[in-house]
Amino acid sequence: MNGASGHRGRFITLEGGEGVGKSTQLRLLARALRERGVEVVETREPGGTEGAEAIRALLLGGSADRWNARAETLLFAAARADHVAKLIRPALERGAWVLCDRFIDSNRAYQAQASGVADADVMAAHAIGSGGLMPDRTLLLSLPLEIASRRAALRDAGRTDRFGARGQEFHQRVCAAFMAQAEREPERFRIIDASASENEVAARLLDAIADLLP
Amino acid sequence: MNGASGHRGRFITLEGGEGVGKSTQLRLLARALRERGVEVVETREPGGTEGAEAIRALLLGGSADRWNARAETLLFAAARADHVAKLIRPALERGAWVLCDRFIDSNRAYQAQASGVADADVMAAHAIGSGGLMPDRTLLLSLPLEIASRRAALRDAGRTDRFGARGQEFHQRVCAAFMAQAEREPERFRIIDASASENEVAARLLDAIADLLP
Repeated sequence: MNGASGHRGRFITLEGGEGVGKSTQLRLLARALRERGVEVVETREPGGTEGAEAIRALLLGGSADRWNARAETLLFAAARADHVAKLIRPALERGAWVLCDRFIDSNRAYQAQASGVADADVMAAHAIGSGGLMPDRTLLLSLPLEIASRRAALRDAGRTDRFGARGQEFHQRVCAAFMAQAEREPERFRIIDASASENEVAARLLDAIADLLP
Repeated sequence: MNGASGHRGRFITLEGGEGVGKSTQLRLLARALRERGVEVVETREPGGTEGAEAIRALLLGGSADRWNARAETLLFAAARADHVAKLIRPALERGAWVLCDRFIDSNRAYQAQASGVADADVMAAHAIGSGGLMPDRTLLLSLPLEIASRRAALRDAGRTDRFGARGQEFHQRVCAAFMAQAEREPERFRIIDASASENEVAARLLDAIADLLP
């Protein structure tokens, strides 16, 4: 059974703002899939490979204005090119499912809509770096901003990166951008209300990919 | 007096393979221009700003296959975006001359012609990152490959980076790519025979930009 992009495995991404529970839910979804006999690769962006993690350190370190939005867009695309070539594509080709915490849609929401880089430029950089690989399904976790901010603050306990350090209004625009993307691509996106219990949200995620299961 | 790109200063790049004498000649040209009362900014790629130098360290370190050609193209473009936004454009806007050791043409010769990335992709990444800024004049230093290799080996004394470490055939293709670019853009390029003495070559470079002097 082939995925939407012609590969054998399935490529699932989790998206959403800071503190909506992406990494926890990714672990729970991976466990549920493994229980069904699926080989699962868990990864994240930016990062996921040695080279991409080195770029991640450049992207997340330093002051909020360390990189202009154009340099940032290219750095994300470079990290993704390494990640896709060395980890994601090989896994999909051998039939594994790849679960990725953030991917191109985060880039689009953060850079294009919130930082003034044209969406066409973000997608062009993705085409140059990764042949424009898109997920088979994107699970957008949605949570009121006040709850998400409180969770992120608890998790980070004062240690925050260049993106977390931006203001509430920035994060509001990012949320709106994610929602707009989901509306433009209803086939690929599923919006998941992440305000319920962890187990309840996990059940919703599994339900949202049920049609892709063998 | 405006440069070709609408700015007031002049943007001059020095190009060519390893060991043709670019950095020495850049210093001599900067000195000659300063003696004529011109404000000169000397810089190099990849690098030239704090952020771009951090990306340079990623690009030049590690094994020859650390990055695939697509990731490499995007990393060069990201470094250049930082360099152009923070150093080159501000200098040109205040009327300074910028002399840069390697720029987009190195990227095109090394990535596009020699590593299989389409020239259109290299130029698209440059457009995304730096608005496609092009030099007013590009001085291509040309030297038989045997002489250049010997000079580079003496200079590096065994310490070589990911690019220097590639084989003779690779460097031959890079030379041919530079020459082809120069032929396509005779207005911008000047090919300089770099086999003469340092002072003689310096005089040729100064002559090749004489029409741009105030």
